[in-house]
Formats: sequence, structure tokens, C-alpha cells
Amino acid sequence: MNRRSASLQARFNALKSNRLFEMVVISIIILSALLIGAHTYETSPTWNKVLRVLDYSVTLFFLVEISIRFWAEENKRDFFKSGWNIFDTLIVLISIIPMTGGDMALLGRLIRIFRVLRMISIIPELRILLNSLLRALPQLGYVVILMFIIFYIYAAVGSSVFSEINETLWGDISISLLTLFRVMTFEDWTDVMYETMEVYPLSWTYYLSFIFFTAFAFLNMVIGIVVNVMEEENRKAYALEHQDDPTLKDVMKELRELKQALEKR
Amino acid sequence: MNRRSASLQARFNALKSNRLFEMVVISIIILSALLIGAHTYETSPTWNKVLRVLDYSVTLFFLVEISIRFWAEENKRDFFKSGWNIFDTLIVLISIIPMTGGDMALLGRLIRIFRVLRMISIIPELRILLNSLLRALPQLGYVVILMFIIFYIYAAVGSSVFSEINETLWGDISISLLTLFRVMTFEDWTDVMYETMEVYPLSWTYYLSFIFFTAFAFLNMVIGIVVNVMEEENRKAYALEHQDDPTLKDVMKELRELKQALEKR
Amino acid sequence: MNRRSASLQARFNALKSNRLFEMVVISIIILSALLIGAHTYETSPTWNKVLRVLDYSVTLFFLVEISIRFWAEENKRDFFKSGWNIFDTLIVLISIIPMTGGDMALLGRLIRIFRVLRMISIIPELRILLNSLLRALPQLGYVVILMFIIFYIYAAVGSSVFSEINETLWGDISISLLTLFRVMTFEDWTDVMYETMEVYPLSWTYYLSFIFFTAFAFLNMVIGIVVNVMEEENRKAYALEHQDDPTLKDVMKELRELKQALEKR
Amino acid sequence: MNRRSASLQARFNALKSNRLFEMVVISIIILSALLIGAHTYETSPTWNKVLRVLDYSVTLFFLVEISIRFWAEENKRDFFKSGWNIFDTLIVLISIIPMTGGDMALLGRLIRIFRVLRMISIIPELRILLNSLLRALPQLGYVVILMFIIFYIYAAVGSSVFSEINETLWGDISISLLTLFRVMTFEDWTDVMYETMEVYPLSWTYYLSFIFFTAFAFLNMVIGIVVNVMEEENRKAYALEHQDDPTLKDVMKELRELKQALEKR
Repeated sequence: MNRRSASLQARFNALKSNRLFEMVVISIIILSALLIGAHTYETSPTWNKVLRVLDYSVTLFFLVEISIRFWAEENKRDFFKSGWNIFDTLIVLISIIPMTGGDMALLGRLIRIFRVLRMISIIPELRILLNSLLRALPQLGYVVILMFIIFYIYAAVGSSVFSEINETLWGDISISLLTLFRVMTFEDWTDVMYETMEVYPLSWTYYLSFIFFTAFAFLNMVIGIVVNVMEEENRKAYALEHQDDPTLKDVMKELRELKQALEKR
Repeated sequence: MNRRSASLQARFNALKSNRLFEMVVISIIILSALLIGAHTYETSPTWNKVLRVLDYSVTLFFLVEISIRFWAEENKRDFFKSGWNIFDTLIVLISIIPMTGGDMALLGRLIRIFRVLRMISIIPELRILLNSLLRALPQLGYVVILMFIIFYIYAAVGSSVFSEINETLWGDISISLLTLFRVMTFEDWTDVMYETMEVYPLSWTYYLSFIFFTAFAFLNMVIGIVVNVMEEENRKAYALEHQDDPTLKDVMKELRELKQALEKR
Repeated sequence: MNRRSASLQARFNALKSNRLFEMVVISIIILSALLIGAHTYETSPTWNKVLRVLDYSVTLFFLVEISIRFWAEENKRDFFKSGWNIFDTLIVLISIIPMTGGDMALLGRLIRIFRVLRMISIIPELRILLNSLLRALPQLGYVVILMFIIFYIYAAVGSSVFSEINETLWGDISISLLTLFRVMTFEDWTDVMYETMEVYPLSWTYYLSFIFFTAFAFLNMVIGIVVNVMEEENRKAYALEHQDDPTLKDVMKELRELKQALEKR
Repeated sequence: MNRRSASLQARFNALKSNRLFEMVVISIIILSALLIGAHTYETSPTWNKVLRVLDYSVTLFFLVEISIRFWAEENKRDFFKSGWNIFDTLIVLISIIPMTGGDMALLGRLIRIFRVLRMISIIPELRILLNSLLRALPQLGYVVILMFIIFYIYAAVGSSVFSEINETLWGDISISLLTLFRVMTFEDWTDVMYETMEVYPLSWTYYLSFIFFTAFAFLNMVIGIVVNVMEEENRKAYALEHQDDPTLKDVMKELRELKQALEKR
């Protein structure tokens, strides 16, 4: 690396950490989000042209910004060690590919929507929040399996027994799973129940037991995890605060030494 | 300030802090709330006149009451340092402005409704409660941004893909945002889903993922914050209770002194 | 009090505390609940007669049981010091009053329903649970006032602005309060909103702000209180467990004495 | 037991604990679940045959697997001491019984569905989770009784007063209980209310009081229990972590000994 590129890198690094530069990037992301929103309104041809020009400018800006970030990195390989950097680069590179005409234009627009997610990669507080949400997920793993087993058994029973009553709701096991999710959200679940109760008057037991199982498991899970995460964080905070404090063990050690000192004399 | 006005101020101050006076003010606020309620019923002309007279009396009473509060303040500038005083004064002053005829009468009535909020400024317990609610709000800040990003992305996708299926629900991004809020409250969300599933059979993934993201983020947020606020208050209470208690540090210090005293001899 | 009645009282007291007697009373209460349920089915005249006879028997049994409880009490005045005893006596006495024919028969049946509540007065665990629920209520006081103020203001605005759109939902302030409660439970709230949005396109702000305010206040309140009650009980349990443990204050006192003992010599 | 069977038992025991064997069993359970799902789709005769053959193979595999587990046990009686083993054996044995023709085929399929539950008996983490859910249940006991009393009283009142308004919703006490559960889930509860309000304009008090009672009791219960279980687990974890730490009692004991040692000299 020659001296000139080194100085350029230093300058880019300074720029990258600049508060104003960050503000500009956030503004451009918000502008890009507004552009996406504007596309959903019916607009005049002139306005459409303006939108397209702005769209290109935003893409260009993002390209320049990512390049600066890449250049600013001393070790180029470190750049791709951060998941967020890879995400940013992908989002920008894909939106460069020209997509026009019918379905491709729609696809291009859908991809551009994910630029809004760059907001999370830029603002550190959002990144921390997302991480703390993700950290709670693995704890969910086994509860999700348990809930899926409950859902699957009820769906299998439902599609075996009720499929002749209403093909649209209980036709096969995948449709039944969707119907059961609907029942879990209490969305017109009595309509579903009253229909099957006309044929099987005792079928309310099916719905009520399902609601009890899922509601209980769900609540238990969500509240349990949140309380758990909270307490953990609090304990960490407590441990950090008291790390220099003496413990009862220290007191006991001190006392024993004192005793020995007394006895020796 | 001459002596006479000083004695008047002292009297006003005494009046202001008077328990009976407070009760009268609260009663008048309740009366004013009932008057607002009475206006929404269809009433005979005679009754209407009575209401109007009572309305004027309440306005007059509030004007006198605010004046007393202002007069009672030793330093007039301090009066406007309290947000609640400014709020009270504004509410009272605006309702003096005569508003008659059609829209203006409606506007006048709407403004008078906010007099009910004076209840909060009068009863200290309600003020404390509101403050504790408001204190929880800034912690919400970043979660609200995160949820808005989720909403915005889903609304952009929804209005891009579903706008031709149902213009009323997915016409543009702002309508889509409203529709998604409706889905989040589980209000007839399956109707919305079944409609789009007829064209895109896999669109249930769109709704289910949205429900999972928002429900999880929402629950995480609300419970997390409340638990946090609660624990903080408890820790404060604990710290206050034990502030005069010796700590393990004090014990260690004492022990070391004891040891030195022994060794010296 | 002569010796004979004293021995009778002792016997009654023994009977009252008898585990078997308690079981019989609980069974009769359950029987009385089943009778109430049986009345709601259409029955043959013969069955009706059986029900009536059983009804009279249950009333008679309750009368005897209350008399035994009253007799068993050494100081008759103490009997009426317990709210549950007064409640039991009232329920039994009222159901003795003969009520026949049309409305009176219905009223008689309604009063008999409350006999089921005797279950709570008999089973101590239910009494404790109810007390702990009631203990959480006063803490709710001010939050209920705050929520009512929110409801009242929104209802006043709603019935002022929307009353001409839908008289059934927004006719006057009391109907509006009911409609707002419906909106808070998310029950077909979009139907209510879409209707007013046709006239006032921005009226979604009214509904969304209302939902946010009430949902936030409600969640904050309920969770806050429950967590609070829980922690209090835990702290009590902790304090009870550690009441005989020495505190750091004791340790410090002991250390100071030791020091003085050393210095004296 | 001769030497040969002993060595066979040892081999089976090794196989049972084999990680690969466990994986195979889990895969076969998942396959069996997929087969159950596949049955709910309409299929060609050829495919049906394949399904039947696979079904038989799975049954056979389960039979062999259970036999291995049974054989691997040193003391055959211990095998039936575990509830999960009995459950597994029952599920497998029942699905051997040949069931063909109409209703019997349906019953056979329903029983086969419960094979999915074997997933819980195989994966230890799910077993622990289920146990922790079940452990929370007995604490629910009295709250469930209290809620049932509330439901029963309201259902009795409802079916006495509203049965002539809508026979389908309030016909007898069991239908009324179902209707009240529907009201508790907020599912079209205003339709139910508006109907009775036409005859009894004050019947909204019935619904609102019911919603308040049940919502409050329900929330109180669920959150209370979860927080309780959580804190208990945390306390256990804390106790385990600090079991070797000295307590303040130890410190005091040490101090007293020191004092006596000083005083003796």
C-alpha cells in the first residue's frame, strides 16, 4: 500500500466515523424509504420521471457510501467478517442490476424495499435491540417444537374428522394448520366451531382444549422468556456494580487469619 | 409589593392549599365534565339554556380559580415554570373566546372537553401516575422505530403486490399501514388473507410472519419495560431502606483495623 | 347459659369443624348449583316436581347448617362480625321467602344462584385467593380514574363529531363509552372506523391514538400490579425466612466490641 | 439369565443409548407424522398402497424399537415404572390391532396420530419442558374453581333471563357457558350484547362486569403463576450457586469464638 492510498484510507475512515456523514446516510435511507412509499401511489408521468432519477441517485449514493466504508477498512477481509457489512453490500449490489418490464420491475422494487433495513445496520441502538431479540429466540426453540406438535396433532385430527363438513377449512393438514392458527387468534373461531357442532355436537371440546393448550403454552413461553432475559440482564448489572465489593468469603478469610494471629501469640 | 396585596397573596395562598377549596375545584371539574356529557343528549330548549348558563358559570369559576392561583404565587414567573399551570391557563383562556354558530360551536365544545384533563393537574396521585407512564415512554423510542420499520417494509410489499386485488385495503402505502395495524389486532385478518390467497396461495406466509414479528416484538417490549420500571422502583425502595446499614466494605475495614491493632502490639 | 345448652354448643362446634360435615356441606352446595342448572333445561312436569322438592330440601339443609354455625358460636355477636357469615345468612334467609308466579319466580331463582358463592365462604383456599385479588384492587383505583378520564374525553369527542354518522354507535356519551369499550376489545373496531373515515378521512388518528393510550395504560396497570403483589409476597416470605439470621449491623456491633476489648487491655 | 442373553441385553443397552439410533428413531417418528399428514390429502390408488406399506413398516419399526428398549432393561419391572415407557408401549400395541372399514379405519388413523407424541418421550428437553408446564398446573387448581364459579353464576343468570331472546346462545346452562367463553375471547361479543340490549337496555352491565371479572382473574392468575415459577427457579439457581458460600451466621459464630479466645487470655 503506497502512502497516497494510505492517506486516502485514513480520510475515509475519518469520514465514516463523522457524525454529520452518519446523519446524511440516515437521511438518504429515509428518502429511499419515502421513494418506495411514493411508488405505491398513482402518479403523473412527470412525477414518475422525478422518482426514477431520485431512485438512481440513491442507488449511486449507497454505492459510493459502501465503497468508502470498504476503502476505510485497513484489512479488507475484516470488512466481510461483519454480517451487517455483507448485508449492506448485497442490498446495494442487487439494486444496481437493471430490472425493467412487468414482473422484473416488481421484483426490483421489492428488493429495493429491503434498503429500509439498512436503518438497523446504521443505528447502533437498533442493532443492540435486534440482537437482544434474537438472543431470546434459541430459548424459544423447544417450546416452538412443542407447540408445533400440539398444532400438528390437532390438525391431523381436524382434517380426518371435519374434512367432509368444510373442505375449505379442513381439506388437508396444511389448511387445517392455518385454520387452527386462526382459532388461536380468536378470529371468528365460533363460526368454525358452530359449523362442526352441527354434525358433532361435542366438537366444542376439540376447540376449547386446543385454545387452553396453546394459550397456556404461549403465555408461559413468552412471559417466561422475557422475565428470564430481564433478570439475567439485571444480574449482570448487579454483578458489574458489585465486582469490587468484598464477599462474605473474604470476611471469613480475614477472620480466620485474625484468629490464628491471636492463637500464635 | 405593598402590604395590602401581600396580605391578599397570603390569603390566596392559604385558600389555594385549603382542602375544602380543592374539593370544590374537583366538584366543579366533574360538573363541567357532566355538562359536556349532557350536551351530547338531545335536550329541550329550556334545558339548553340552563346548560349554557352553567357552562358560563363554570368558565367564570375556572377563571377566578386560576387568577387566585396566579395571585398566590410570590414570584409571578414561577407560575409559568410549571407545565400544568400553563396547561390550566391555556384551557381556561381558550374557553373564554366566544364561539357560536355551526363549526365554531363544535370547536368550542371540543376545547371545553379538555377541561376534564384539569382533573389530572389537580389530583397529585394522578399526576404521579401520568409521570411514571411518561417516564416509560423514552425507553420505547427505539422499539417503536423498529416496529415502524417492520410495518413499513410489510406495507410496501403489500401495496406493491396486493394493490390490484383490493384497492380499498392495499391501495397505497398509508392504507396498507392501516390494514396491517388491523391485522395486528387480529380484527377480521383472515378475511384479508383469504382474499389475497385466492391469487397468491402462498401469501399466508406474509401474514403469519408479520404476526409473529410484531406480536413477539410488541410483547417483548411492553412486558420488558414494565418489569424494568418495576425492578428499578423496587431497587430504589431497597436502597432507601438500607442506606444507613453497614456494608461488607465497612466490615472489612473494621477487620483490617483490628488486625493492625493486634499486630502493632 | 345452662349446662345442657353449653354441651349442645360444644357438640355443634365439634360438628362444625368436622371434616365430614364440611364435605357434606360442599356436596349440598354443588347439588344446589346443579339444581339451578337443571332449571334452565326444559323438563317434564314430574321432573319439575322432583326439582322443587330437592330445592326445598337444600333450602332446609342450609337453614339447619347456618343455625348450627350460629349455635356453635360461644359469643353470638361474634357470628355477625364475619362478613362471610352475614353473607351466608342473607343468602339463606332470602331464599326462604316464597316467590311464585312470573317475575317473582325468576327473581327467586336468580337469588338462589348466589348460593353457589357459598362455595367461596366454605373453602378457605378460595377465600384467601379472593382476598388477594381484592387486595390488588385499591392499587387499581387511580389507574381506573385515569382510564375513565381517557374514555370520557374520547367519548365526548366521538359523540360530538360522529353522532350524525351513526346514531346507534355515537348517539350520546353513554353509548359512545360502550362503543369505545368495544373498540378497546378490538371487536369489529375497523367497521366502526371505516364508517367514520368515509366522512372524516383522518378519523383513524382518533381510533389509533385511543387504542395506544388504553392498551398502554391497561397493560402497564395490570402487569405492574401483579408484579408488585408478587414481589411483595416474595419479600414477606424472605423476611420470614431470615428473621432469625444475624444482620450486618450485628456483625459490626460484635466487631466494635471486640476492638474495644482489645484496646482496653 | 444365561450368558448369551446377558450379552444380548448389553448390546441392546448400548444400542438404546446410541446417538445414531436415537436419530433414526426421531426420523421414523417424523416420517410417521408425515404419513399421517399425507393421508389427509386425496391420493391416487398407487400412492395409497405405498402409504399403507410405509405405515406397516413404521409400526413394525416401533414394535422392534420398543422390544429393544424392553430387552435392554436389566430389571424388566423397572421398564413399566416409567410413565413414558407405558405410554410408548400402549401407542405401539394399539396401532398393531388391524382396523379396517369405515369408522374403524378412522379410529385407527386417530390413534396413529398420537404416535407424534412419542417425540416428547424421546427428546429429553421436551420432556423437561412439559414437566415444568405440568408443575404449574396444580397451582392453577383453585383459580380454575373460582373462574368456574364466576362462569357458572353468569351462565345461570344468562340462561334464566336471556333464553327467550336467543335459544341458540342462551338455551340452557351448558350452551350459556359456551357463549360466555366466546364473550371472554371477545369473539363477536357485541353482537351477543346488542341482541339482549334490545330487550333489556341495561344488560351491558352483565357483559362488562363479566369481562372485567374474568379478564382480571385470568391475567392475575397466568402472570402470577409464571412469575412465581420463574422466581422459584431463579432462587434455586442462586441457592445452588452459593451453597458453599459462608453465611452471616458463620461470620457471627467465628466472631464469638474470637471474642471468647480474647477474653480467656
